[in-house]
Amino acid sequence: MTLTQLKQRSLLGLKELGRDEIESILDRAAYWENHPVKIHKELQGNIAANMFFENSTRTRFSFEVAEKRLGAEVINFAAAASSVEKGESIYDTVRTLESMGIDVGVIRLKPIGLLAELAESIKVPLVNAGDGNNEHPTQALLDLYTMRKQFGNLAGLNVSIIGDILHSRVARSNLYALRKFGANVSFCAPQNMQARELDVPYVTMDEAIKADVVMMLRVQLERHDSGMIKSAEEYREQYGLTVERAKSIADHAIIMHPAPVNRNVEIDGDLVEHPQSRIFPQMENGVPIRMAVIERALT
Amino acid sequence: MTLTQLKQRSLLGLKELGRDEIESILDRAAYWENHPVKIHKELQGNIAANMFFENSTRTRFSFEVAEKRLGAEVINFAAAASSVEKGESIYDTVRTLESMGIDVGVIRLKPIGLLAELAESIKVPLVNAGDGNNEHPTQALLDLYTMRKQFGNLAGLNVSIIGDILHSRVARSNLYALRKFGANVSFCAPQNMQARELDVPYVTMDEAIKADVVMMLRVQLERHDSGMIKSAEEYREQYGLTVERAKSIADHAIIMHPAPVNRNVEIDGDLVEHPQSRIFPQMENGVPIRMAVIERALT
Amino acid sequence: MTLTQLKQRSLLGLKELGRDEIESILDRAAYWENHPVKIHKELQGNIAANMFFENSTRTRFSFEVAEKRLGAEVINFAAAASSVEKGESIYDTVRTLESMGIDVGVIRLKPIGLLAELAESIKVPLVNAGDGNNEHPTQALLDLYTMRKQFGNLAGLNVSIIGDILHSRVARSNLYALRKFGANVSFCAPQNMQARELDVPYVTMDEAIKADVVMMLRVQLERHDSGMIKSAEEYREQYGLTVERAKSIADHAIIMHPAPVNRNVEIDGDLVEHPQSRIFPQMENGVPIRMAVIERALT
Repeated sequence: MTLTQLKQRSLLGLKELGRDEIESILDRAAYWENHPVKIHKELQGNIAANMFFENSTRTRFSFEVAEKRLGAEVINFAAAASSVEKGESIYDTVRTLESMGIDVGVIRLKPIGLLAELAESIKVPLVNAGDGNNEHPTQALLDLYTMRKQFGNLAGLNVSIIGDILHSRVARSNLYALRKFGANVSFCAPQNMQARELDVPYVTMDEAIKADVVMMLRVQLERHDSGMIKSAEEYREQYGLTVERAKSIADHAIIMHPAPVNRNVEIDGDLVEHPQSRIFPQMENGVPIRMAVIERALT
Repeated sequence: MTLTQLKQRSLLGLKELGRDEIESILDRAAYWENHPVKIHKELQGNIAANMFFENSTRTRFSFEVAEKRLGAEVINFAAAASSVEKGESIYDTVRTLESMGIDVGVIRLKPIGLLAELAESIKVPLVNAGDGNNEHPTQALLDLYTMRKQFGNLAGLNVSIIGDILHSRVARSNLYALRKFGANVSFCAPQNMQARELDVPYVTMDEAIKADVVMMLRVQLERHDSGMIKSAEEYREQYGLTVERAKSIADHAIIMHPAPVNRNVEIDGDLVEHPQSRIFPQMENGVPIRMAVIERALT
Repeated sequence: MTLTQLKQRSLLGLKELGRDEIESILDRAAYWENHPVKIHKELQGNIAANMFFENSTRTRFSFEVAEKRLGAEVINFAAAASSVEKGESIYDTVRTLESMGIDVGVIRLKPIGLLAELAESIKVPLVNAGDGNNEHPTQALLDLYTMRKQFGNLAGLNVSIIGDILHSRVARSNLYALRKFGANVSFCAPQNMQARELDVPYVTMDEAIKADVVMMLRVQLERHDSGMIKSAEEYREQYGLTVERAKSIADHAIIMHPAPVNRNVEIDGDLVEHPQSRIFPQMENGVPIRMAVIERALT
């Protein structure tokens, strides 16, 4: 395989991915969602390695289910249980797994820019499962898929993303992808959680909840020691989607969240399974999306 | 599937399970024990998720072997390596896995009552792998299976359960099930480890070891800060099955223990593989029992 | 299976293994390396348990890939996530897994001598994945395989092993095996890392790097509190394979390392993928070697 072909099979981010390419992944996910058999044989004989240098439950599971449904063998690596602790570099670990003959590597890691470097030297396709605050492309793909299922079309759709934009790879990947489809993205965040370099309009909470899609982000207050927001209660009051605020959401609008949710911080517990919430459907959609992405990496 | 059907496939505890139902699980386990092929295809195409919100070696392994022998795909979740740490509730995790399309969930957790709540809202069958000090039904099923193999019949059998009854889900599940079959259960425990609400006679250690089945429980002295028993040595002396005491056990009687064993605390190391001990056979029996339980959940 | 047959299928170390037996494992590995299909069916229906009572990334992965390529079901056990913490002995854990019907056990553990004891009582073949500083036979087998691929023949080959010999099971297993094939082994190490009981000549670093095979060992300075070497920099200066020193290596010679590598301590980062380095090829060779070892255990 040439380096160019490898790169075409890898999924490092949505910023550089063409709109057609994104659309074909969404279409293939729809195929998998509607395909009744549970375990397929498409990828029998292939080994997928999930390499998580950062903790994760849902994303790793979602990939694992997707890989197994495609018939692949799965090997899981979690940094906390490994010799990464002993100072082994991420590069050496990934090269090691490559040497052992894996066919695709799913990677989550913290250091920004490292994934692109890895992709230059690793000879198997790589799938980004979240890198620092840079991108989380499969999350954004499943978000787009969820919106497309709801609204048919993304063009002209108003999407508010509310919360810790600064640290959010989900916000970035959604932004890059949604704009390719002509959606209007706005952000809402306290000042110390804003990412001004992204050139997106910031709106107030009252405006934000009037969008077609109200996407809440997980907030991690411990990351913001010098913030203007002092407590979870204060955050909820100013930027949380409370039951009270949810009354102002339009009837046709949907509530999204990449999860895991901090119940009663960025979103009230009672809204998680609200009729307009798509939080668990998002997770459901993650499996066919990841099937499409893994299949694309291997065929 | 209706909620009623789901509940019939789930295994939340033995207290509410009919005697016939228990017997049919034991019979099916006997079928699996005697079936020579190692990996079957009964459950091919199904995904089993083992969700352990409490550490475990043997129970998780036993379920995993059972699931794999039935041909199912297996996904393991252990709380320590997950975002449960980040405050995600058990409910959200289980709902997440459900959304991803698992077919059966095996769950171990601490909070009592939560499993029953989960079973009201989760749309896949759930199997209790131990919930707090409430129930551990598959352990009791394998215990009954072991006794039935030994004695043919459970009616009239005298079973002593010795040790930390208060914290023991094993004691409770055994009690509920054994009584349905007409066995006589008695307990033996220091006062601070007794569970008076269970309406079972407490006997002395001398009496307890005269039973047909002498079932020792794992003791965790660190749980009993204000106890009358101050040290492992003192516990062993008063409530341990020592080599000396074992001489008084009847020739036809058997020694059981749910494991893991604290050698030389509740049972002397030399007795673990004593001819009358069934400790490792219990583990062996766990696999066909769990095959029967998982199969029942999925067919 | 008789105990003698079991022992013939187990792989506890290379010290006691015959030269012919070693050669047949290397030959079988060559067969697997050249066999194009990724997942075979040789061991379908078998369950392999990887029991790691010491952390490991690459060894566990390598076994897991090998087992899966042979079609076996794999169950992973890591001590840190288990009830070994609760004081359960290694023996009880291994006996538990045996009771559950595993077909082969791959074990890594610290206590020296325990593996041989286990092999006396456990009724399934055991494969040593590293026991204390005693042996690491599959590592040495893949090292021999790598050397044989390079030089065709091991007789008369000069192999230097450089670093923490005292704590190295890799050095010991290589020594035992290489001598059976007529290779000349020499060691190079600071005095507090030498193992004088092994009857191997110690040479200076200048001499050591003139060998046909320059095998560097991972150094863990934290193990040597009272050493003559005070820092990683000092170690590198005296015993590290630096870019400068590597210039003196013969053109036909190769550099090896069992990994994980401490870059810029025992070997400079720039040498890890040097044209004469076989570090990643060693890992590649580990898979067919372990396929041969697991297959031998099960057929």
